[in-house]
Formats: sequence, C-alpha cells, structure tokens
Amino acid sequence: MVKGNFNFNRLKRAYIFPVIEEKILELRSACPNVDIINMGIGDIALPLAPHIAAAIQAAAQEMTEGTNLYGYGPSEGYLFLREAICKNSYQGLPISAEEIFISDGINTDIVNILDLFHTSCSVAIPDPAYPAYLDSNLLQGRKKIYMMPCTLETGFIPTLPNHPCDIIYLCSPHNPTGVAMNKEQLQSFVNFALENNSILLFDNAYEAFVTSPNTPKSIYEIPGAEKVAIEFRSFSKTAGFTGLRCSYTTLPKQIQARFGKKILSLHTLWKNRQSIKFNGLSYPIQKGALACFSPQGKLEVQKQVTYYLEQARKLKEGLIKANQICFGGIDSPYIWWKAPEGLSSWDFFTLLLTKCHLISIPGIGFGKHGEGYVRLSAFSTMEKTTKALERITTLVNL
Amino acid sequence: MVKGNFNFNRLKRAYIFPVIEEKILELRSACPNVDIINMGIGDIALPLAPHIAAAIQAAAQEMTEGTNLYGYGPSEGYLFLREAICKNSYQGLPISAEEIFISDGINTDIVNILDLFHTSCSVAIPDPAYPAYLDSNLLQGRKKIYMMPCTLETGFIPTLPNHPCDIIYLCSPHNPTGVAMNKEQLQSFVNFALENNSILLFDNAYEAFVTSPNTPKSIYEIPGAEKVAIEFRSFSKTAGFTGLRCSYTTLPKQIQARFGKKILSLHTLWKNRQSIKFNGLSYPIQKGALACFSPQGKLEVQKQVTYYLEQARKLKEGLIKANQICFGGIDSPYIWWKAPEGLSSWDFFTLLLTKCHLISIPGIGFGKHGEGYVRLSAFSTMEKTTKALERITTLVNL
Repeated sequence: MVKGNFNFNRLKRAYIFPVIEEKILELRSACPNVDIINMGIGDIALPLAPHIAAAIQAAAQEMTEGTNLYGYGPSEGYLFLREAICKNSYQGLPISAEEIFISDGINTDIVNILDLFHTSCSVAIPDPAYPAYLDSNLLQGRKKIYMMPCTLETGFIPTLPNHPCDIIYLCSPHNPTGVAMNKEQLQSFVNFALENNSILLFDNAYEAFVTSPNTPKSIYEIPGAEKVAIEFRSFSKTAGFTGLRCSYTTLPKQIQARFGKKILSLHTLWKNRQSIKFNGLSYPIQKGALACFSPQGKLEVQKQVTYYLEQARKLKEGLIKANQICFGGIDSPYIWWKAPEGLSSWDFFTLLLTKCHLISIPGIGFGKHGEGYVRLSAFSTMEKTTKALERITTLVNL
Repeated sequence: MVKGNFNFNRLKRAYIFPVIEEKILELRSACPNVDIINMGIGDIALPLAPHIAAAIQAAAQEMTEGTNLYGYGPSEGYLFLREAICKNSYQGLPISAEEIFISDGINTDIVNILDLFHTSCSVAIPDPAYPAYLDSNLLQGRKKIYMMPCTLETGFIPTLPNHPCDIIYLCSPHNPTGVAMNKEQLQSFVNFALENNSILLFDNAYEAFVTSPNTPKSIYEIPGAEKVAIEFRSFSKTAGFTGLRCSYTTLPKQIQARFGKKILSLHTLWKNRQSIKFNGLSYPIQKGALACFSPQGKLEVQKQVTYYLEQARKLKEGLIKANQICFGGIDSPYIWWKAPEGLSSWDFFTLLLTKCHLISIPGIGFGKHGEGYVRLSAFSTMEKTTKALERITTLVNL
C-alpha cells in the first residue's frame, strides 16, 4: 500500500472550526426551533456592499463581450488591483505594487509560504493562535516548533523567544484574543528579527479594525520591517469577502534566504512558486476588490467596519457590566472572554451553547494557552448583540 | 540567514509559460504593429457564455440581500454544485457527491494532493506533460521520479513502468500531445495500479473535447478505477472558466494509504487537509459553474466546445495539406506539430514567431521527449485559424 504523509499523525487535536459546525448541527437537530446566536466563526453578518456587487456584475458582463477577453490572468494578480492596494494601503511606506501578490485567502498563502523554507528551520508561533499556523508546520514535518505564550500575565502579547528563531508568526490585532500590539511591541519583534536573521510572517487580517492611534495598520510602518517581514492581508473581514475570496501577500524584494550556496530573494522564489502552483484569482472577484478603493466603495466598507466595531464595544461593555472578565474588542472584532473559575473552555462553550444558545469558540481550539477562555466574534447585528447580552445576563444572575 | 527550501535549486528549467509571455512582450515591443496570433497558452478565445455570466451576476446580487448570507462556504464546496456535478458528470458511475471537492483549479489541486503522500513514494510522470507535475515533485524533495515517454514510437501513449510505482500521473486527452487514451489503454493503467497498489492521479481537464466512441470521458468508466484513481476536472476548458476559476477533484472514499501503523482513507485526509489549508471557493463562481448544467448552460457551453473542436480539425487538416506531420486535435484542442528535420523545438518556435507571428509552445517545455515538437492550441477563432494557416502555408512554400 502507498505510504501516506505520516505527519498527518502529528495532528493531535481536531481542527476546531469543523468541530463547532458539528456542534451547531447537533443542537439544531435536537432542538429544531431554537434561536441560535452564532458568535463563533468570524464570519460576516451584513450583506455585501452594493458597490462591490455592482463591480463584480460589471466584470462578469465584460467577460461576455468580445472586445477584451479575460482568460488566465497573471498568477500574481492583475496590476490594476496591485496598484490600487499599493496606493491605498501602503501610501508612504517602502512597498511597491510588484511586491504585492493577489490570492484567494490569507489561510491559503500563510500555509503555502512554508514551501519557501527548509524543513529544518525553527519556527515560533503565538499560543493561542489561528490553528492553521501550527497544523501546517506539523504537516510539513517541521520539528523545531516553539510556542510563544500570550496570557493574562503577558498582556496577551506574545513573548519573544529567548533564542534565535528562523520563522516567527505574528497576528495583530490578534486572533483569537482581540488584542493589538502597539508600535513599540512590534518594533521589538522587528529588532529581534533583524538581529537574529528571522523572517516575520505577519497576519494582518484585522487591520481595518484598528482605531488606537499607537497601533500600526501595517507592519511596514515599523522601521526595518521591509527587510524581514512578509505581510498577509485580506478583503475578508475588511470588506465582507469571506464568501467571495480575495487576499494579498506582500513580500518585499529585499528579503533573502540561503538556498545551498546561493542567496536568493524570497520574492523571486514566491513568484516562481505561484506561477508553478497557482493560476491566479478570478477576474470578477479582483474587480470587486478594486471597487473597495473607490470613494463609494470606501464609504460602504467603512460603514460596515464601524458597525462591527460598535457591536464589539457593546458586547464588551455588556459583559463587563455583567461582571465578566474579557479582553480585546477595541482594535478588533474579537472578544476574549474568561471562563468562570473552574470551568474549562469546552465546559464554558457547552454552558453558553445549552443555556444561552450562543455559539463561541473554546480557547483551547487555538492552543494550550487558550484554555480557560472562549472567543466571541462581534461580526454580528445590533439585534443579535442585544439578545446575546440579555441571555448572558440572565445566565449570570441565575 | 534563514535556510530556504533547497529543492528550488532542482528546478533546472525555467517554467515555460512565463517565458513565452516574455517572448510575446519582446516581439510586441520590437514590432508594435505586428498582428500576433497566439496559439500558445491554452486559453479561451470566445467570450463567456451569457447564461453563466447571468448566474454570477444573480449570485452577487443575492449576496447584497440580507435574507441569506453567503460568507465562508464549506471548504469542500457547496453541496448544490457537488450534486450537480455528480448527476451530470458521473451518472451511472460509482461516485457520490461527497467524493467531489470543489477548488479553484486543477493546477492547485494536482500540486496540493502531494501533501497526502510520503516523500519516499515513487512517482511516474508522462514525458512530455504539464510541467507542474514534475516541478511540484521536485519542490517537495521527491527522489524516486520516473518519466514515462510518450513518443511517436509509443503512439504518444505513456509507457507503463516496468517496476512497481506508488503514484502515477496520467492526462488524457493528453496535454501537450492532444492524443487521448482509449478504454483498453486506460484499463491497462488501472490494472497496473490495482496489481501494484499504485494511486493514479488522472488529469481530465479536456474531457469535454472527447468525441471518439472508445475514449472514456471519466477514468471511473474503467472497472476498478474507483479503488485507485483520483480524477481532476475543471470548468476552465469545458466552459471558458480560465479567468473565473473553478475545478473539482474526485477522491473516492475507498482509496487508502498507510500512515505508519494506521491505514486511512485518503478522502478523509484530503477533507482534513482542505479544511486546514483552504477556505472554499467564491460563492458567485460556484453559482456560475452550476449554471453550466442547466439546459441553456449546456447548450451554450457545448456550442463553444464544438467551435473549438472545429478549429482543431481545420488546423490539423490545413497542416497536413501543407505536408506537415502532426498529431492530436481529434479528442483535444491541442495539436502536436513535428518540427522540420534538424530544428529543435525552440528553433521551430522562433521560426514560427518571427516568420508567421504565430505563438506556439516549444515541446521541450513539457519534457525531454517533447523535443522536436511544438504545441498549438485550437482555442482560437475561425478568422485566426484561417490566417494562421495562410501564414504557415506561405512559410512552407518559401
């Protein structure tokens, strides 16, 4: 029999999101009339902005006309979108349009980026964190994996490794804790990377939610980052693209690695990798993403972000009013809610599910140091936020 | 400095398609007024069918309405599309909708599928073949790679390895030769896989072009294939989706591999892999793909396939009339054209480029045994096919 990739045996935990989906299905089948409030998966709650839909529709129409054919696009994405991103997201920063690669999701790119690195490289991953970081490293057979605890004691900021490390994952505003790193904290990671020849993989999925003045919107606001950091950004949370799929990876040309005797630009290698393994993103979806940068698109998108941030603020205020301990929710749509003393994150998840019909995500699904917490997503509506708080208050007062 | 994946050093040849793009740009910049006929990359020449565009537009509209939200879809694709594929493409065959996984391209899946296998597995690849097969194996660090020559002597059918082999790539109708394998030839590969516990990776991108009665449209028409074969299919060539992106991978549940002491279904592992590494395909694009199966969609799509096959027939007839030696073009949009005696495939490419302003793909770009040939794509229009033949006839008669 063919030998499979034994590294699948290293995945000890079930991947959290499908497990939660099953729990929801179980509840729905046991109690069909129950009114579930899903604050689990970080998915959209508002419909797609009309201006973006119109751009997708126009692009599909354009494809039926014979004047310009939009078949295979460039594997790195259309220049119109790369240039718009550069102008809008990286104004004044040392990034060019050529350094931006369009893709279908941060998830895809942040696992595929591992193709560039030797399996002997050491890696540091925040704990808790988005589980694909760890799982993709396990599947690739990587041995030297260090976890960086993000706990109450560290202010939920990852602890720098006390030894050199080749690859370091960062996510800020952080998933799942909802806590953002400020300039100084990010600078300490960039300095560490510069001193130790590390590469930072910076997951910046939630930048649109940053409101604190001392919290950077891009890692490239930190001096030196363009020498060491690869940034991953997305239209998913920023503009409601979770079901449309569009993201981008920014890989500055000056970041290098050693390939045997050769020293090569990772930018060149990623370009090679993508042209071999990826045939580019859907044209209408790229046009939809472009529409996010028009004046009308910006307005519509910002309105949604503001709406979600308002839900986060309300949710957090309500929880605190109900004497709960929680974090995040300021520069982020996520709230990190401490379970009552003595309850595990799964216990608390089950309590919220059965008593409040409220879906959260148990912190343990994001790593060992997520134990004792659940994540609530504020991608929600006014009505649901209010209802969730009512149910929580009733539970607390029991 | 961080160690890169040294396997990039194993990519000795430049990836062919970007090289051709550069050649076109060079010609355009040297001679801006030249009328280039591109029969190189296998891309669409006809606009998108209106019924498909309308479905995409309706889906985008639907997303702006609050009744149903289409955020993250299932990573394996929406059931509506998987069921439609099952009903339309696998009627009467031992395949269920659950065994079908939606993705953004065969290219993506046929490289990602390697995640499932141990790097020590041996692999057999047709030569010539789509270059991503070999390159993805080189990048993964695979050592035991055997090439299966497809030459004039073998009738362009890959030669079965004379030893057991774990993974075997097949593409029929074949890219680049345009030659399709008949039932008996495919049965011999399925039998080999059954006897030697091999897995067949069956790239079936061109099934829509099959017209010969003894040529299967799916590998699962061959008894036993459901125990050994993973089939990759796409809407790209079938329905002009090269710029829209939608494909599917069919992985029957009964195909197994050994993971240390465990024997596991590759179907389960692929589902895990996808849920960790992929967040699903764009909703409007999946609705566009669904529209290909409606009565109107089928009509529009079949009309395009027939049109392309007609170009292939004309092109081949014209070449033969001009005393050229060529193959394929019956169950395939590709024609495999033998270079004049003494010319390499690059020489011939350059001759056609400079004298006819005709873009082909040099056979050597697909492997050693592609030397001495070029591939022409018949994804073209009546006008361009006629013009190409006129230029070729003039060149031949010089």
